[in-house]
Amino acid sequence: MVEKYKNREEYEEEVISRSKLPKGFKVGVVPLTFFPIEKKVDKALPMKLSLILLDNDSESFGSVFTKNSFPGHPVVHGKKMLDSETTRGVLINNKISNVRCSGGAESIDNILSSLSENLNIKGQKFFSSSTGIIGWKLPQEDIISSIPKLIESLNSNSIFPVAKGIMTTDNYPKVRSIEIQGGRITAVAKGAGMIEPNMATMLVFILTDIAVERKELRSILKRVVDKTFNRISIDSDQSTSDTAMIFSSNIIQGVKTSLFEDSLYSICLDLCQDVVRNGEGTAHVIQVTVKGVQCEDDALKIGKAIINAPLLKAAIYGNDPNLGRLLQAIGDVAGNENIPLDPECITLYMGDYIIYDNGAFTLNEELELKLNRYLKDRSFNETAIGFPEHRNNVEIVVDLQNGLESATVYGSDLSYEYVRENADYRS
Amino acid sequence: MVEKYKNREEYEEEVISRSKLPKGFKVGVVPLTFFPIEKKVDKALPMKLSLILLDNDSESFGSVFTKNSFPGHPVVHGKKMLDSETTRGVLINNKISNVRCSGGAESIDNILSSLSENLNIKGQKFFSSSTGIIGWKLPQEDIISSIPKLIESLNSNSIFPVAKGIMTTDNYPKVRSIEIQGGRITAVAKGAGMIEPNMATMLVFILTDIAVERKELRSILKRVVDKTFNRISIDSDQSTSDTAMIFSSNIIQGVKTSLFEDSLYSICLDLCQDVVRNGEGTAHVIQVTVKGVQCEDDALKIGKAIINAPLLKAAIYGNDPNLGRLLQAIGDVAGNENIPLDPECITLYMGDYIIYDNGAFTLNEELELKLNRYLKDRSFNETAIGFPEHRNNVEIVVDLQNGLESATVYGSDLSYEYVRENADYRS
Repeated sequence: MVEKYKNREEYEEEVISRSKLPKGFKVGVVPLTFFPIEKKVDKALPMKLSLILLDNDSESFGSVFTKNSFPGHPVVHGKKMLDSETTRGVLINNKISNVRCSGGAESIDNILSSLSENLNIKGQKFFSSSTGIIGWKLPQEDIISSIPKLIESLNSNSIFPVAKGIMTTDNYPKVRSIEIQGGRITAVAKGAGMIEPNMATMLVFILTDIAVERKELRSILKRVVDKTFNRISIDSDQSTSDTAMIFSSNIIQGVKTSLFEDSLYSICLDLCQDVVRNGEGTAHVIQVTVKGVQCEDDALKIGKAIINAPLLKAAIYGNDPNLGRLLQAIGDVAGNENIPLDPECITLYMGDYIIYDNGAFTLNEELELKLNRYLKDRSFNETAIGFPEHRNNVEIVVDLQNGLESATVYGSDLSYEYVRENADYRS
Repeated sequence: MVEKYKNREEYEEEVISRSKLPKGFKVGVVPLTFFPIEKKVDKALPMKLSLILLDNDSESFGSVFTKNSFPGHPVVHGKKMLDSETTRGVLINNKISNVRCSGGAESIDNILSSLSENLNIKGQKFFSSSTGIIGWKLPQEDIISSIPKLIESLNSNSIFPVAKGIMTTDNYPKVRSIEIQGGRITAVAKGAGMIEPNMATMLVFILTDIAVERKELRSILKRVVDKTFNRISIDSDQSTSDTAMIFSSNIIQGVKTSLFEDSLYSICLDLCQDVVRNGEGTAHVIQVTVKGVQCEDDALKIGKAIINAPLLKAAIYGNDPNLGRLLQAIGDVAGNENIPLDPECITLYMGDYIIYDNGAFTLNEELELKLNRYLKDRSFNETAIGFPEHRNNVEIVVDLQNGLESATVYGSDLSYEYVRENADYRS
């Protein structure tokens, strides 16, 4: 599906139209400023505090966290929270990720205690979530003194302020939602890796009023994340803070869980493509389908190797169909991982063009020109125009003709902008 | 060891002084031009043909090839050649890598037959080696008609012409040699990946007059390559053509094989650092030592993950000690690969500075400034000056304090230049 917008306003209207909150939720956002203790800065740095608040205690919640061996303090805290009987929501900050600084765990306790007190909620019922610079300390006092204003900002209509509040260097807010049989799922995301050059974190918050029992909700979340967010890669980094969290207010009864799961999958698939498309400097979204393999895991390994191959990514950025690099990336992972592959039998496609077949490339002058045109037609520069221009992916298909399994993964090209952002940016 | 040169001439003199051939070898190089059939070009493209020729048949030779599942035709041919009783050497071309084009195997047969005929050598006793664009065809006729001139160019003194002849976009020729008890090992390399943005191939040719029996020579080569060339990574790509080849003329008897192996290791370690340092756009060579692990393989996995982490590489390019990215890269691979790691116990160093200890970063304003200075002092721009300015690596040490094993790997930073070369370059 290709979505097109005339300008930033039209795109923002579309996102706002997707932002209706499910029943039983309020959200609020407040900006604040602070001085970090680790670095001298000329003026106070900006931070935003976002709150997702359930109107009532809910037992139906779950989260999938990063597997990184240096999990951030919010991840450590969140894993414990999963054992709680109920939750009331999550408090999120951007700018500092609260990872491996001293006193990070205590900061979470102090901040969440103050939040609960201000809301007159007994016990500790909140998750914490942070994204930003690793190793710096949260400005605990500044955050605590902003909580009353945060509570004043609560609204029960739109998640849009949170979609903007959790952004760091994201180009645009990301919201997807769906209505099913009178119920609703609404989800927001903050981008990953390249998209967050300094942050390298993906955060996803999914809200629903559809009743799903806790254990089932968690199984569904895990399955959906495996098939969506775990199939994107910007620069092969798994951050210390990656999190996908789901909350249900359990208000709308009677929706079949299979329908719920399908809908959640559809939203998350859109959202994870939004994340890839949001890369600063991203000019092409690359969609790789690997089929004809004996197990899905092999398809994922090959797909990930392709979308993480710097030489191929740079060539696609330059609209140069340098397909030797594609072959090289496939052969590299297949050789190292012992994935059965017969060079005589595989077929490669870019878009509708067959580029390799019967054991050899099909390249000639005419095809090279067509592929160059194909890549140019799929390039865009959202940084310049401020919204994602289209959803016109570069489609690569690898058919190993050696089995019935397949998988699709998403990544982005490698641009000067990526390096510039990541070489120079930290404040 | 820091090697410094005043200018390009002084550096080239140093390389020439390393270029003395072992006894029993001749080398020759001839330039030629050709028109590719795959792409319209305004003027003929340049290619160089290099020959390494043993004066007599030798049984002592070996090669380590890429594990890529799409090996180039020279690799397929070379694997068969390993079973031959004897060899007389190798014919190498740059510009086109002879991978997965139709008729590539026949081209090798025709070209090598012509070479043998011109040299009056019975039977097929040569290896073939190619580097360059993947998927294009070798200009067979142009190569064959250049062979008489190639033979005219043979000399028995210096490998320097070959070191230059196998270059593609390499900045400078790479030669290392050593004399042992009247014998000699001389080796040349062509760079990898980033260093060869368009080619992504590493070729190494090692010549010696020290007598080593074939089976032992092959074991030694494998062990040395595992500890040297297999421990560098520019962009995690393993090309379709990577090759390290060794030939002995068996003239100098009586050198202990353990001494031979140590000397070969020393040469190859220098040469592989030359390859990393040769990157166009490389501003920092990154040397990562992982120690305190339970098995060497874990150390290699962590080390490779660090030198392949784009976010960290880009930060180092910018002289920005954004160490969260280092932690993230370590935690990512440890989490995914189940490498035992206790965040409370590890210690991280950059140069002599402790940057993480006792479970948390040691960052403060003063240390950040010192690290920024440390990175600046280790940055260079060989592209601008045309020779490798120094051997002053950025040294990162990861101590897991959980075992007795360790490993050191080498990589480079990620620069705008890398992307520019790889986005725009193909001719």
